[in-house]
Amino acid sequence: MIRFHFLLLLLLLCLCLFSFSSVSVSSEECWVRCGAWRVAGEANNLGEWKAVPEECAEYVKAYMTGKGYLADLDIVSKEAAEFARTLQPAADGKDAWIFDIDETLLSNLPYYAAHGYGLEVFDHEKFNDWVEQGLAPAIEPSLKLYEDVLNLGFKVILLTGRSERHRSVTVDNLINAGFKDWNQLILRTPDDQGKRAILYKSEKRSDMVKDGYRILGNSGDQWSDLLGSSVSVRSFKLPNPMYYIP
Amino acid sequence: MIRFHFLLLLLLLCLCLFSFSSVSVSSEECWVRCGAWRVAGEANNLGEWKAVPEECAEYVKAYMTGKGYLADLDIVSKEAAEFARTLQPAADGKDAWIFDIDETLLSNLPYYAAHGYGLEVFDHEKFNDWVEQGLAPAIEPSLKLYEDVLNLGFKVILLTGRSERHRSVTVDNLINAGFKDWNQLILRTPDDQGKRAILYKSEKRSDMVKDGYRILGNSGDQWSDLLGSSVSVRSFKLPNPMYYIP
Repeated sequence: MIRFHFLLLLLLLCLCLFSFSSVSVSSEECWVRCGAWRVAGEANNLGEWKAVPEECAEYVKAYMTGKGYLADLDIVSKEAAEFARTLQPAADGKDAWIFDIDETLLSNLPYYAAHGYGLEVFDHEKFNDWVEQGLAPAIEPSLKLYEDVLNLGFKVILLTGRSERHRSVTVDNLINAGFKDWNQLILRTPDDQGKRAILYKSEKRSDMVKDGYRILGNSGDQWSDLLGSSVSVRSFKLPNPMYYIP
Repeated sequence: MIRFHFLLLLLLLCLCLFSFSSVSVSSEECWVRCGAWRVAGEANNLGEWKAVPEECAEYVKAYMTGKGYLADLDIVSKEAAEFARTLQPAADGKDAWIFDIDETLLSNLPYYAAHGYGLEVFDHEKFNDWVEQGLAPAIEPSLKLYEDVLNLGFKVILLTGRSERHRSVTVDNLINAGFKDWNQLILRTPDDQGKRAILYKSEKRSDMVKDGYRILGNSGDQWSDLLGSSVSVRSFKLPNPMYYIP
């Protein structure tokens, strides 16, 4: 009788471990592929993409809500702060650090959590409704970097793809989330509508350079925040596997 | 007696699961941090680094010898091939694709396996001994891409940080690994010694442009293969968490 119970328990244990390990193998392969897809995006190896690949929906959700996203934000912010500390902003107040807003200073994760974490194709109307609530929380490692560069004496310039009509709600949201003392907040004017982000942001950086600013640092979650012309001395790509803006 | 055995077995099971999960928690956190470090490197967010962080030695070894490295190579090669297929090389034979060699076409993994997978600081002398054996295997996804771009009608230009004195062993190694029909193989001449890779490679690309080449694609495992001047229309960053060349 004792031997029987022992065997039964051992059998159950084996079954449990076996089913656990076979689930892990198939999901591990998908996880590896989706990890490779995410890293390819961060390294700017992917072409334009419209939505998260269907097989990666669970992976992206786990990444965004788990430790991975935070760890990635953390190291980018620390590397940027370390670079900033090697610089000596000049007394003329023309050394600038640019920050993008969405997924850089403010997190729209509450919105994306309700919309498949990037699995759904981007819906401007619904997203605007969310923006107009002004409830996006701060991305904490970015807030830390923001304060660091201000304290070091940089001028902070905010350059966002949001529209001028969202200026007031954006200002309120930023202030409520803890951001302050920026030098300029640049939003898309009616003239900028329809321009690709990489062109719009390059033009605005070119204006900054014409105004005498030296762009030493630039933080953004899209490569279109960072590449183009009048680029920063160093650029910092924050993680974002949820959407791609060309 | 039966109950006692049952309880004992349950206790052992709990202890086993508990120790397993607590090992995973601490190693999971290290894994997450090291994953973030690796991705930061791939996204060009790290400054110059000399060696893999000590806590990431096991992580990098597991990545390089496991499924992750291969999956990353695979997606980069596929994205590059997809881009290449959207192009129509012109009849003048001046559309070029540049490949770096080490960790791009040829793998030095057998060397790094014997030298801590990047944990040891780079040793030129020992590495040269390895190069002179001419035994580096092909990186298979890159060989596939190499053949694809040749078949599409691109001119392939190999641009490497290796020295001219290694030309013959490099040619033999490439041919033995399956690479052929390149248009040019550019190695560092005595004049190029001591130049930073990003400058050396920019100068060589600038020469190509002067020679009438249009650089449409560029594959390399270092950002210094890809950035600088006369850059390619699109660049493809192959993974490499083992070393950094400025």
